[in-house]
Amino acid sequence: MTPVTKKIGVLGAGQLGRMLAIAGYPLGQKFGFLGASHEEPSALLGHMYTEKDEASSLSELIAFSDVMTYESENTSVELVRKIAETTPVFPAEKSLYYSQHRGREKGMFDSLNIPCAPYQVVDSLESLTQAVDEIGLPAVLKTTTEGYDGKGQFVIKETTQIDQAWKEVGGRELILEGFVDFSRELSIVAVRNVDNQHVYYPLVQNVHHEGILRYTIAPARQISEEVQTQAEQYMKALLDELDHVGVLTLELFETVDGLVANEMAPRVHNSGHWTIEGALTSQFENHIRAITGLPLGDTSPRQEIAAMVNIIGETGPVKDVLTMPKAFLHLYDKAERAGRKLGHINLVADSEDELYQQINQLSAFLPKV
Amino acid sequence: MTPVTKKIGVLGAGQLGRMLAIAGYPLGQKFGFLGASHEEPSALLGHMYTEKDEASSLSELIAFSDVMTYESENTSVELVRKIAETTPVFPAEKSLYYSQHRGREKGMFDSLNIPCAPYQVVDSLESLTQAVDEIGLPAVLKTTTEGYDGKGQFVIKETTQIDQAWKEVGGRELILEGFVDFSRELSIVAVRNVDNQHVYYPLVQNVHHEGILRYTIAPARQISEEVQTQAEQYMKALLDELDHVGVLTLELFETVDGLVANEMAPRVHNSGHWTIEGALTSQFENHIRAITGLPLGDTSPRQEIAAMVNIIGETGPVKDVLTMPKAFLHLYDKAERAGRKLGHINLVADSEDELYQQINQLSAFLPKV
Repeated sequence: MTPVTKKIGVLGAGQLGRMLAIAGYPLGQKFGFLGASHEEPSALLGHMYTEKDEASSLSELIAFSDVMTYESENTSVELVRKIAETTPVFPAEKSLYYSQHRGREKGMFDSLNIPCAPYQVVDSLESLTQAVDEIGLPAVLKTTTEGYDGKGQFVIKETTQIDQAWKEVGGRELILEGFVDFSRELSIVAVRNVDNQHVYYPLVQNVHHEGILRYTIAPARQISEEVQTQAEQYMKALLDELDHVGVLTLELFETVDGLVANEMAPRVHNSGHWTIEGALTSQFENHIRAITGLPLGDTSPRQEIAAMVNIIGETGPVKDVLTMPKAFLHLYDKAERAGRKLGHINLVADSEDELYQQINQLSAFLPKV
Repeated sequence: MTPVTKKIGVLGAGQLGRMLAIAGYPLGQKFGFLGASHEEPSALLGHMYTEKDEASSLSELIAFSDVMTYESENTSVELVRKIAETTPVFPAEKSLYYSQHRGREKGMFDSLNIPCAPYQVVDSLESLTQAVDEIGLPAVLKTTTEGYDGKGQFVIKETTQIDQAWKEVGGRELILEGFVDFSRELSIVAVRNVDNQHVYYPLVQNVHHEGILRYTIAPARQISEEVQTQAEQYMKALLDELDHVGVLTLELFETVDGLVANEMAPRVHNSGHWTIEGALTSQFENHIRAITGLPLGDTSPRQEIAAMVNIIGETGPVKDVLTMPKAFLHLYDKAERAGRKLGHINLVADSEDELYQQINQLSAFLPKV
């Protein structure tokens, strides 16, 4: 055991746990995972506690762990509170509590003067109709909890669609969000450690297709210093308000009136995967540093420009990727399934031209538009 | 299982296996290790087959593996031959057979016209005395097999020391090597895959202290294109002669008459650890690509200059390392012990000055001279 060694327990055993472990072992850390089976992406990268007998698996993982973390913003707040009675868990329950409910999250944005779309929580056809009246159309109707990758959403363009929207995603608590006229989707990854050190990655540009992130350009082009600083100020406010420890990600819209917050995730994020080879310290390593009481690493890019291209649904011609000098393959060891994130490819380049040439070579991995 | 997934069995579970696994998982590979205990550096990074019942552990590892490799040039040739009857093992036995015996190794250098020190295999005080007479002094007396990190060596400076030298390291087959008057110790890492693709990393400069590598500068400074090409030609000759698959490392002396081969290792090498962050593809990833039938990755450095500083004996102030923006910590999860390699620190820099400033900051990890 070296002086920095900690045993880290991860709730979940998917690709995020896998990449946390790959980043954490070189720091001397050890990993354990709570997962559904020994086939999960993290299964070979540490002690695996399977959920066949969930209560005892969880107890064993807690007993193993010096500190714990989790993969999903849908992790139970009650569970995290319970674990925290005996074992440190980061991010703490407050980050989860706000992140996993779009209404609470937007309330926090408001209270911190972080611009976001007009919104209203609704729980009936009547309240939805009234909200549409106040917010205007188009607007997006979403579940307040648990939606991701565009699931559980309905874009209402005309009042005639209100009934249909309620039928399709309603019957539970929803949030109606006013439409934001944006030029680009951006995101920022920030990290705070137990000693209150804050670091920020540059804003990146994200391109989605059918609700799923397809690729990220990092840093986003043509971002002024003022806009980067603005994003960092929003993040600092959130990190401090939440007393957040670990990585926090904020998705933003770029509009003519400035940045508008969309949603946050209290975890390492797909739009931060470029940092593995693209930044001096990856988001994964910085999350591990943050939760284990280590100094945070430098977040500067290692090259002019980088990109991350997701591998979705089918593994595709990954051998061809290995012949590209500046491409880095990251597979998650998951079976193919429509819409599933199976891996990603990081790219580094000395110029935008060079980067887009590489992205063009990866057309097999990108949606046909 | 993705199309590129292979199960890789590693004979050994030390830091080399650990770093092979960390490099291999992103390619979708899975790992199993044969090791002495669950406390070894690779233990948490794959299926662990411990040697408590070595025969059955080995059988289980073979059954697990699509392809096998090993950490040490001292792996039994007979064992590798036996495994190869059922399961591919790379590098194959020929590479081992020549690498693990200094006499055979030098015979191969001779046959391929790769310059090396004059040498003679001796097995008695008489033959040693005769060899000293022919080769001259100073000369180094070494065991023909198994020595590493300067162990089992005796530098004979005067004929009066011959008796003492024989007493200290003799009583078995030895090799006497003529002294090479060198300006620098260099090494080159090369890789050949099953499809006969060859790639070469740049020559690096190594600084040893008491027989142990302390730091590497990569690429070595002031190496002409001709010298790099010469080194690559030597490596190509060796790779082809051995029908080698995987990483092969050659240690060389830089002399006024050109490069002189010292010894080779049929494996990833300490002097190649800089490639993890320093090159577009690390030696570990390229070894995995080579033995699993994948195209080899680009070996170009990612920055002007890089370095690797070994952490020897004591873990030292590694938290301070984490505050250095361009330093990358790699711990092996090994207990402290004098002379033991516990980890390394990679550095990247835009200039030699910047690099040496960083190395100076790491003085706690370097021998006091």
